[in-house]
Amino acid sequence: MNLLVTINENYIYPFKIMLHSFFLNNPDERKVCVYLLHSEISGEKLNELELYCARYGARFVPIMVDSRLFDNAPTNKRYPKEMYYRLFAPLILPKDVERILYLDPDILIINPVKKLWETDLGGCVFAAASHAGLTEITTGINFARLNIDHEYYNTGVLLIDLNRARKITRAEDIFRCVNEYEKNLFLPDQDVFNVLYGKYTLPLEEVIWNYDVRNYSKYKLKSAGKYDSFWVMKNTAILHFCGKKKPWRKNYKNAFGFLYKHYMNLAEKAHDIVMEEYI
Amino acid sequence: MNLLVTINENYIYPFKIMLHSFFLNNPDERKVCVYLLHSEISGEKLNELELYCARYGARFVPIMVDSRLFDNAPTNKRYPKEMYYRLFAPLILPKDVERILYLDPDILIINPVKKLWETDLGGCVFAAASHAGLTEITTGINFARLNIDHEYYNTGVLLIDLNRARKITRAEDIFRCVNEYEKNLFLPDQDVFNVLYGKYTLPLEEVIWNYDVRNYSKYKLKSAGKYDSFWVMKNTAILHFCGKKKPWRKNYKNAFGFLYKHYMNLAEKAHDIVMEEYI
Repeated sequence: MNLLVTINENYIYPFKIMLHSFFLNNPDERKVCVYLLHSEISGEKLNELELYCARYGARFVPIMVDSRLFDNAPTNKRYPKEMYYRLFAPLILPKDVERILYLDPDILIINPVKKLWETDLGGCVFAAASHAGLTEITTGINFARLNIDHEYYNTGVLLIDLNRARKITRAEDIFRCVNEYEKNLFLPDQDVFNVLYGKYTLPLEEVIWNYDVRNYSKYKLKSAGKYDSFWVMKNTAILHFCGKKKPWRKNYKNAFGFLYKHYMNLAEKAHDIVMEEYI
Repeated sequence: MNLLVTINENYIYPFKIMLHSFFLNNPDERKVCVYLLHSEISGEKLNELELYCARYGARFVPIMVDSRLFDNAPTNKRYPKEMYYRLFAPLILPKDVERILYLDPDILIINPVKKLWETDLGGCVFAAASHAGLTEITTGINFARLNIDHEYYNTGVLLIDLNRARKITRAEDIFRCVNEYEKNLFLPDQDVFNVLYGKYTLPLEEVIWNYDVRNYSKYKLKSAGKYDSFWVMKNTAILHFCGKKKPWRKNYKNAFGFLYKHYMNLAEKAHDIVMEEYI
């Protein structure tokens, strides 16, 4: 299984937690290769990450990207340049990598993802979940704002058929899209993904593959009680800690935060280190 | 390390979850022996429990107790006869067992308990935590109700020096105490423990060794914010799901319930079984 992350140094800590949760809950995955697209992570940190992956038996492949490519694209502290790298991944990753699972770092993996990895994409190039099914208002806004006529996908979990993606990914499309929609872009890379590639995307079941932890009550209500905490812990594979408030920071209130902090502790104990970065 | 549980068939499921959490978070404990005092668990269930323990490399020693001993003691569905067995454990357990850690089944063990196991009891016979330090009113009531002049201990986690306990445990004391206080007993066995043995008990730090999950906000407030969720996940070893509402049942609301259900799922996956007992 190939995993892709596109983080900068600020997200190394949550990336480590995510990876720990992946390996604890996917013990049968033996051949895992973690690709990192980045621009500014130091050699020292990269070595440390390589060792971190090696302790799980995983290969680590960091790929440096020239960040000047995105000098003119909209970014800010919360949405750095690196977020665009997932859009460019098909052009940057080695040609022999055929399929990859992109994961945001603000994620906890609590059940096997094998079925996601083996998803039959049919005629599609990508697979992603929409968080819009539960908040139709947002969907409507996105339709108007971005002029799309399909679901608005969350790109925090994104399965990519790289062979096909290489055929449709063109840098000029991405830059043109950024320029064209600049003032309307809320989540720049995700918006661009939706505008350009939404139509090539297979919808995934969000409660299983990209569960927005802020929406527990909504999911439960909409499912007439089916998606209660038993169901979630048994069936949901990927918990996504979306939004501005993050579970590795102080004063995070969401109930899933306890689970996240338990994994922080498990990872810290497993690696016999104190990860101070989150303080 | 010797563990003691005193359950009936209704608590086999949470006992299994507790044991799974123990072994996941105490990987360095290699010589674990689990003693079970019971009266009514079938041979089939006992065999299953022996296999369950064996999968963790633990020895399982079930000891049948004649339940008629407690025919006249106050009991109900939530507080069955078995709860008295911890009081009698020093008289029942094999003479070569010198120290034992009694654990309620409604517990999750999220960090190592080695330090608890190795506690220097000084001149004491038992070690237990009080949940009273945070609710002084209850303490006052207990002082008056049971005529005790020390902390009111919660016996859900109880370290016992069995050699010393054998010297002070007399069945007639226990029965006399049950009769004497019968009308005032809220939690019969725990009350009896406090009346008879509270004075021989070393107080443990409750937020580490017997954390009442209902009291998260109180603990945090009383500690001026120190015992936040980071602290708890890093330092608390034993989460105790006290009270009538249990995390393995439907409609449990406490935020720690997510963590409990995650462990239910981990245990079920590890043993490749569906534990239906909780439904």
